[in-house]
Amino acid sequence: MPKGSIGLLRSRCVNCGIRHAGDMLPPGFRSRVLLCEGDGLIVAIAQCPLATHVSVNSGTAMSFRTDAVKAYLLDLQDRICAALETEDGSACFVEDAWERPAGGGGRTRVIENGHILEKGGVNFSHVFGAGLPPSASAHRPELAGRGFEALGVSLVMHPHNPHVPTAHANVRFFIAEKEGEEPVWWFGGGFDLTPYYGVEEDCIHWHRVAEQACAPFGADVYPRYKAWCDRYFHIKHRNEPRGVGGLFFDDLNEWDFDTSFAFIRAIGDAFVEAYLPIVQRRKDTPYTPQQREFQEFRRGRYVEFNLVYDRGTLFGLQSGGRTESILMSLPPQVRWGYDWKAEPGSEEARLTEYFLQDRDWLAEAGE
Amino acid sequence: MPKGSIGLLRSRCVNCGIRHAGDMLPPGFRSRVLLCEGDGLIVAIAQCPLATHVSVNSGTAMSFRTDAVKAYLLDLQDRICAALETEDGSACFVEDAWERPAGGGGRTRVIENGHILEKGGVNFSHVFGAGLPPSASAHRPELAGRGFEALGVSLVMHPHNPHVPTAHANVRFFIAEKEGEEPVWWFGGGFDLTPYYGVEEDCIHWHRVAEQACAPFGADVYPRYKAWCDRYFHIKHRNEPRGVGGLFFDDLNEWDFDTSFAFIRAIGDAFVEAYLPIVQRRKDTPYTPQQREFQEFRRGRYVEFNLVYDRGTLFGLQSGGRTESILMSLPPQVRWGYDWKAEPGSEEARLTEYFLQDRDWLAEAGE
Repeated sequence: MPKGSIGLLRSRCVNCGIRHAGDMLPPGFRSRVLLCEGDGLIVAIAQCPLATHVSVNSGTAMSFRTDAVKAYLLDLQDRICAALETEDGSACFVEDAWERPAGGGGRTRVIENGHILEKGGVNFSHVFGAGLPPSASAHRPELAGRGFEALGVSLVMHPHNPHVPTAHANVRFFIAEKEGEEPVWWFGGGFDLTPYYGVEEDCIHWHRVAEQACAPFGADVYPRYKAWCDRYFHIKHRNEPRGVGGLFFDDLNEWDFDTSFAFIRAIGDAFVEAYLPIVQRRKDTPYTPQQREFQEFRRGRYVEFNLVYDRGTLFGLQSGGRTESILMSLPPQVRWGYDWKAEPGSEEARLTEYFLQDRDWLAEAGE
Repeated sequence: MPKGSIGLLRSRCVNCGIRHAGDMLPPGFRSRVLLCEGDGLIVAIAQCPLATHVSVNSGTAMSFRTDAVKAYLLDLQDRICAALETEDGSACFVEDAWERPAGGGGRTRVIENGHILEKGGVNFSHVFGAGLPPSASAHRPELAGRGFEALGVSLVMHPHNPHVPTAHANVRFFIAEKEGEEPVWWFGGGFDLTPYYGVEEDCIHWHRVAEQACAPFGADVYPRYKAWCDRYFHIKHRNEPRGVGGLFFDDLNEWDFDTSFAFIRAIGDAFVEAYLPIVQRRKDTPYTPQQREFQEFRRGRYVEFNLVYDRGTLFGLQSGGRTESILMSLPPQVRWGYDWKAEPGSEEARLTEYFLQDRDWLAEAGE
């Protein structure tokens, strides 16, 4: 499948039966039509005017697709770890495979004290539970208490050098089940960047890769999920963004399963392309002990967001997840000082005054 | 008023009208009878068999008592800061008076980089709000959305030396109001100790002072609030206590207002007596960089508890409190490591294996 496409092989609306070739859309279709015949995947259309809703959430197809998601996530974890290890050139990821007493398990991979990476983790988990925890059902009260299945890859990288930003990415798949009712599934994910010393070129690159990953799914996707990222990674009690954003989405089931799955693959696959060039450009920038201290204070904000607001962290802790895997996201060395602030007019003050401001990086770059 | 008494001047049941002198209880009374005449305080009885409930929550008496609580809290803040400053001998508390846009304000006092105290704060706050936040009404759904008034003193001390424990204390007064209904008030508070290198003598001393402060209010008070402290300061996702406990209570309105107020005064006043002798005994113990590092990792647990579970922190952040005053509780330098554990058999391992175990320190000491 060519990179950048969304897997359009042959296309037919499963509802109206019309076949289409290539990525041509028939008159009256407001969205792409997808069909991958022959590999067992049933593919539905999005927004075919003849069908307002096409359900493909039925029967054995569900478990088959869960397996496909799982296979993708395990492979994604492998590829990301390999790319980061190669770049670091010193430390290796150490793997801990674990099982969860209440159901499921995971494959945690952690890197520490590398040449570039001070602490980071790329975790795969697949957990089951009898009742969806409040952090996952807060926005969907109708699902409270349903049995659930959750799969995901989640990563956080904390480099030593304050000139190399911290990065986070996550792709996840949820299924909420109840006897006698159709399972409800959704995807979530995204990636976001947290610099300590902002560089416009890096912010633009990061957002450009995000936009390109979204483009095949509609021109409105990047702006919507970019805005959601700004809203989500907001430290309310500081009235301050956690970083310079990127993409965030959750509760994604407005598209059919295969479009959604193709979308999270596009996001997952884009991470290395978004992050690595920034690491390569900044890893050799010299830094002072004062700049390192600044990074440690800023890391305090990262901890505040993750422990007070982050839905993934709270979901993990509330659902009896593996604490060490969940909290691998916390930075290695952190400072808090009373009413700590950067010197007015300093490069450090510019971080919050200019970079952490929910900017439209691509529009400002004239893209 | 003699130390250790609960302010028994002359006593008369406001319901049955019987007068009593000294601290004699009339036959049939299962609890103390309190009355402070002449200073405007109306005092009710607790558990007089002639009256199952005596309400004194009415009219102007309420606001007058709020003033009395406020005056006590401001004085308590002064006394604690003076005692700690004298002991530290180097740094001074710096005061920030602040107002809260939504109503109320406070007096934050912070000490940093002292001889003994690396970072600490003793904060007074008095805030008002239109709707009680979820952290305060979670256990009292009938009060959700009521207007509220909250007064308190809250302190946390993080010493440099890992042999000196971190200490926390808090006393607070809440009033939830609704037009046309009686205001509902309650007190909360307590103090608890978080050592890095445990010493039995210190744990016993800490709990002995706690028990003595509770004793005039009934023999069951210390064991109940000691147990509540163990339950409350529990880091669920680690299945580990935050420290060696002390006292914790909340929703205290089972006694009349004056008994309750006398009780929180006893707790507030006991803090310095509980903490200072421990600081004095341990402040000169030499320590290694490794012991300091251990302290920084353990401080990570403190952050986890405060940001994920602590009702006071969440109440403050949810009610639009002053972030810097609320988060002064966070330690100055903190570490996290993936799956970080103390060496088996080490002094460090003994902290969790022996000290952080919800022990009955006084019973073990034969007291």
